Amino acid sequence: MRVLGIDPGIAIMGFGFVDKIGHRIVPVQYGCIQTEARTPTEQRLVQIYEASCQLLDRYQPETIAVEKLFFNKNVTNAFSVGQARGVFLLAAAQRNIPVGEYTPMQVKQSVVGYGGAEKKQVQEMVKRLLKLSAVPKPDDVADALAVAICHAHSIVLNDRVNGVTPK
Amino acid sequence: MRVLGIDPGIAIMGFGFVDKIGHRIVPVQYGCIQTEARTPTEQRLVQIYEASCQLLDRYQPETIAVEKLFFNKNVTNAFSVGQARGVFLLAAAQRNIPVGEYTPMQVKQSVVGYGGAEKKQVQEMVKRLLKLSAVPKPDDVADALAVAICHAHSIVLNDRVNGVTPK
Repeated sequence: MRVLGIDPGIAIMGFGFVDKIGHRIVPVQYGCIQTEARTPTEQRLVQIYEASCQLLDRYQPETIAVEKLFFNKNVTNAFSVGQARGVFLLAAAQRNIPVGEYTPMQVKQSVVGYGGAEKKQVQEMVKRLLKLSAVPKPDDVADALAVAICHAHSIVLNDRVNGVTPK
Repeated sequence: MRVLGIDPGIAIMGFGFVDKIGHRIVPVQYGCIQTEARTPTEQRLVQIYEASCQLLDRYQPETIAVEKLFFNKNVTNAFSVGQARGVFLLAAAQRNIPVGEYTPMQVKQSVVGYGGAEKKQVQEMVKRLLKLSAVPKPDDVADALAVAICHAHSIVLNDRVNGVTPK
């Protein structure tokens, strides 16, 4: 089963496709969609939307995971991330791909085994679990892979609960 | 010249089309796009996107105005409004329609003549300027018309500054 993890943002949107094969999680493709600050917002949203559509059509994920975001101070940032996340969710929904949401704590718990883990520990575990030679950069890419891993783990769990053998 | 004003939101997105004919501003069509709270967010975004595309294609505005939003407390709301605003801006940018932004103070200044005006005064002036029989409801519709009027006024000003006769 192919899972896509997304770390939304207007300047950098991290993405990570992984395949869940039995108990293994194998990286397929990861990277980020970047837009330039001097480009008008609406054009940046078009770029994100078009790049998202291309990625979804090319790598055909069966399910998608996005981090449930909490903002405690930067409201302008929340608004800006919201706009980028909105066009991504649109692209996903137009293809009928289900989207799951996880809190940062759920992602840490799933990837590191401890909900209070540090960012560095999460990145190190992403590298180890996916057998990568280095921690993916920028951070947004590692974050996207982390939420994809969390989702892949959770699918196994859901399948077990329902008594279905993981595909 | 046809102007569209937008008051973005995930539950209610107000819209107001007005025509600027010489010095007059004439209402063309106004109302709101509504989505239900029980519908998943990504489906609501698809509904908003599709309704926005239909409105833009049907009423063909030459220019669009959206209120520049400030959130000082409700971050979750900022995030949610951001997602809705993102898909609307996408629909506008895909049609190459320019989008202008105005602060609430600029809208009040332009519609009432006083940047510190009350919401009720703005609504009353929208009704009077557009010769409507009643204040448009819900508030989001009146707000959308207010920002359209503000944009229409500003276009005249810009034209004057550039020495061009308003179309």
